[in-house]
Amino acid sequence: MNRTPAFVATSSDAPLTLQTIQRRDLRPHDVSIDVTFCGVCHSDLHEIHRTGNKPLVPGHEFVGTVNAIGTDVTRFRIGDAVAVGNIVDSCGACAMCLAGQENYCVAFPTLTYGGNDRVDGTVTQGAYASTYVADEKFVYPLPESLDPAGVAPLMCAGITVWEPLVHWNAGPGATVGVVGLGGLGHLAVKFAHALGAKVVLFTTSAQKAANASELGVDEIVISTDPQAMTDQHNQLDLIVDTASAPHDLTPYIRALALDGTLVSLGALGSMQFDPMALLIGRKSLASAGSGGTKGTQAMLDFAGEHGITADVEVLPARDVNIALERLERNDVRFRFVLDMREM
Amino acid sequence: MNRTPAFVATSSDAPLTLQTIQRRDLRPHDVSIDVTFCGVCHSDLHEIHRTGNKPLVPGHEFVGTVNAIGTDVTRFRIGDAVAVGNIVDSCGACAMCLAGQENYCVAFPTLTYGGNDRVDGTVTQGAYASTYVADEKFVYPLPESLDPAGVAPLMCAGITVWEPLVHWNAGPGATVGVVGLGGLGHLAVKFAHALGAKVVLFTTSAQKAANASELGVDEIVISTDPQAMTDQHNQLDLIVDTASAPHDLTPYIRALALDGTLVSLGALGSMQFDPMALLIGRKSLASAGSGGTKGTQAMLDFAGEHGITADVEVLPARDVNIALERLERNDVRFRFVLDMREM
Repeated sequence: MNRTPAFVATSSDAPLTLQTIQRRDLRPHDVSIDVTFCGVCHSDLHEIHRTGNKPLVPGHEFVGTVNAIGTDVTRFRIGDAVAVGNIVDSCGACAMCLAGQENYCVAFPTLTYGGNDRVDGTVTQGAYASTYVADEKFVYPLPESLDPAGVAPLMCAGITVWEPLVHWNAGPGATVGVVGLGGLGHLAVKFAHALGAKVVLFTTSAQKAANASELGVDEIVISTDPQAMTDQHNQLDLIVDTASAPHDLTPYIRALALDGTLVSLGALGSMQFDPMALLIGRKSLASAGSGGTKGTQAMLDFAGEHGITADVEVLPARDVNIALERLERNDVRFRFVLDMREM
Repeated sequence: MNRTPAFVATSSDAPLTLQTIQRRDLRPHDVSIDVTFCGVCHSDLHEIHRTGNKPLVPGHEFVGTVNAIGTDVTRFRIGDAVAVGNIVDSCGACAMCLAGQENYCVAFPTLTYGGNDRVDGTVTQGAYASTYVADEKFVYPLPESLDPAGVAPLMCAGITVWEPLVHWNAGPGATVGVVGLGGLGHLAVKFAHALGAKVVLFTTSAQKAANASELGVDEIVISTDPQAMTDQHNQLDLIVDTASAPHDLTPYIRALALDGTLVSLGALGSMQFDPMALLIGRKSLASAGSGGTKGTQAMLDFAGEHGITADVEVLPARDVNIALERLERNDVRFRFVLDMREM
């Protein structure tokens, strides 16, 4: 059994502590990875604060280097630079899995941490650790041209915005709205811009959007300004809503053009909107989360070609509790990444 | 000024009475129509029971014969058989109108009754009457091969289901669910079947669906049976929901396949559903209503080619209050049509 240092949440309100945990022995298709950089996702905070799931090692968007491989691994060799996201297994047999959308696996995907391993039933533990072990199917080659620290957040925040952008045809001729300029939002802007779409950013804070044009924003709309919102009526083909706080979706639905779609990526509670806003213009409200192996590989290829990474602030892993505390009060631009070699 | 007998609602709770109303003098592009058959739509009941809009002549899905034309009319001649739906004018300049979706006109379309005429500001009065006057742009040639009485409901119920079926690609290889087998639902079944889709009917009543296979239904699901609903999980590419009573949309969203869409045609109140059901499988919730000139002509062409009309019970116009009362208690299969020559 492999042992590895890891930052462990032992209760819903105590700081994470450095402990030693066990990784499984390598199965035939397993890859063992020395974790170099791991992003700090809002989900990590959510899971830390939730009760009943401890002890818990967070971390589900990371990059690293292969340090060992199972007997039947074909896709990787020791020394390869790789990346892993928030899903590490799935049933492999349902329609969702067969479509390469393991994130929607009917039998539920195995999450990178807090999931149930499909072979031995143990709870998976994440990548706030020195090493991680995963089936090669859910491990991806790291694009050589990209800064590894900036790739880590692509594996969760990036794929979550990439799939809806591609599915709903963000590209030349399309006008895409992005609500919120956080971890997800800034990547949505970068990808939508690189895909060729016109990008409209909806934000509550002009200050926060100060350098938005450098990210690829063509137009900024202050969402608290009713006239500015009215001016957007029927303008947008797609809106990617990354705002996690509950909010009325009606003004954004009204901003959609005929047959437009508002895809909610942040809302987990109930969705509030006026159904008539949906009817007038035959508009759609959708939701999506994470991504599958097919989309993840396509996103990494695209990111490599277009030089897209997350804008990150790298902290030594030993400062994990500082990162979590600052994320909690939204003091981040745009994603924290932990250097796991600095424990 | 033309005068015509018409059935008028004078209050929200009294029976309609036969009176004489005025139609406008013909404008250059106007067509005057002798109304032969007019469908009885649920909207008629709704508007009759609403307060503050009286006197009101309902009727917005009808067929008839041209009896006079304005000086600049080019599309019709006296004696032509024609059909009219629930929209008789629009701004003609907005993106919705330019796309042939006048039903979503940004300046709001002029409704066939209870609307405000764009020229003189008078309130439009419907086709529970001997004649109707409309701009030729919103008048359609009646397909010769079809029974005129059965065409009348196509102009509202028919186009309302046609446009979403076509927009969301109902056709060979697609599985389409239809919720409810009333005026809209039975036409959704007929169109979806003729378009080549597999049709699954969701109904609360096996009895009501007794002859559903003759309409084109391939599979019947009793929606009150939890196991039957579970069996449909992730099966349907599109669901056309025609149920007007409030209901939880979650079981239907769960019945959608990856990237499927549930389009609500009956719900005007709030929509209830679990957002997680929408997320898992990247599903969409949409709404739509009525149709535009482009879709209406396409629907009539398709109906003519495939011999599709509504299944109707024709009553003499003098029985209008019986029709309304029976519709109110859902005693209709599938649509009442008034013979306006029998006043």
